[in-house]
Amino acid sequence: MKRLKLLVTLAKKGAIGEKVKITLRELADELGISPQSVLRLLDEMEKEGLVSKEVLGRKTYVEIDHEGLAFLESLCDAISEALYNGVIIGEVISGIGEGAYYVKQYAHLIREYLGFDPYLGTLNIRVLFPKTVFDALCGVRPVVLPGFTKDGRTFGDVKAYRIRINDIEGAIVVPSRTVHPPRIAEIIAPVYLREALNLKDGSRITLRVVKG
Amino acid sequence: MKRLKLLVTLAKKGAIGEKVKITLRELADELGISPQSVLRLLDEMEKEGLVSKEVLGRKTYVEIDHEGLAFLESLCDAISEALYNGVIIGEVISGIGEGAYYVKQYAHLIREYLGFDPYLGTLNIRVLFPKTVFDALCGVRPVVLPGFTKDGRTFGDVKAYRIRINDIEGAIVVPSRTVHPPRIAEIIAPVYLREALNLKDGSRITLRVVKG
Repeated sequence: MKRLKLLVTLAKKGAIGEKVKITLRELADELGISPQSVLRLLDEMEKEGLVSKEVLGRKTYVEIDHEGLAFLESLCDAISEALYNGVIIGEVISGIGEGAYYVKQYAHLIREYLGFDPYLGTLNIRVLFPKTVFDALCGVRPVVLPGFTKDGRTFGDVKAYRIRINDIEGAIVVPSRTVHPPRIAEIIAPVYLREALNLKDGSRITLRVVKG
Repeated sequence: MKRLKLLVTLAKKGAIGEKVKITLRELADELGISPQSVLRLLDEMEKEGLVSKEVLGRKTYVEIDHEGLAFLESLCDAISEALYNGVIIGEVISGIGEGAYYVKQYAHLIREYLGFDPYLGTLNIRVLFPKTVFDALCGVRPVVLPGFTKDGRTFGDVKAYRIRINDIEGAIVVPSRTVHPPRIAEIIAPVYLREALNLKDGSRITLRVVKG
């Protein structure tokens, strides 16, 4: 972990594309090791091609080398690929009671575009992982339920992302004009999910985004 | 690094939001340590709240816990924040010679929208870091040079991202209909960059994206 921490610390100090002045004391404090250990670590990492070092008088300048940047990039890619694979973990919460009304208005579109008759209500979950719904939905193409006008009232476009909870297929719906911050996901399904899955406020559930 | 590697391996196996069956042998091979060491590591990580383990007969099931997911997420965030801070490292290459013609056509827009009289040519660089120009430009709002028609020919919208090379201000230009893959960046500037910065094919340069 020391190597990784040192690389991230150097990256934060701007040691990308140019050498920046560092002090061993400062890096030692950040890493919780001695200045001597920092120097040894930097020497090792220089040999491995992760960083370049230059000493001018009493000043030390360090830059992350191509190998070091590639290491950080590939680590970050590996983590995000493994993490954001369409799993959303959430906790059931109570909605503000408007779900039923809206599902009723869009029911004909849900039938047409998603292929099921929706239960007239939504299940609201507070997203625990990833940090926001959008991290999990990133790169997933939504089904757009086109907006319409009815009795002089305008209903906007709604984006629906197909998901599965256990064996039940449903969708996360994100109205274009939502009042929910992206930490809350609203779910529609052909069944009353609270009953079918025996959920209460505070129950933890795992959703899987259905891709393609 | 072992903890991190084990967490990433478990994430890849889908141990997010549900327990998955693992074998110590398999994890040991992936991590290059003994099965005994894997077991010890899993036990430690369970105590730290990073994973949950369950043994059913001869089978072991493991899931990454909330702490473990939060650790991976924050590590990835820290890396990408430190890495993608608007620095682009590239290597000068030769263009296909069309730059001058296009810069001439858009010169009036460059003057109006970017505030400088462009040198009639572009500097082409192969992006070495980040992997593509878009990783560095992600979240940066471009200045859009609106398309136009001239002598019956259509010139499309061009996105311009302000950058600085040393003390020279310029822009990366990305035509909507570019033939360049995103690994090549085309740069315009008020001066002839190859001369001003003494650049040759293969010279390495560092660009800084100017935000806001």
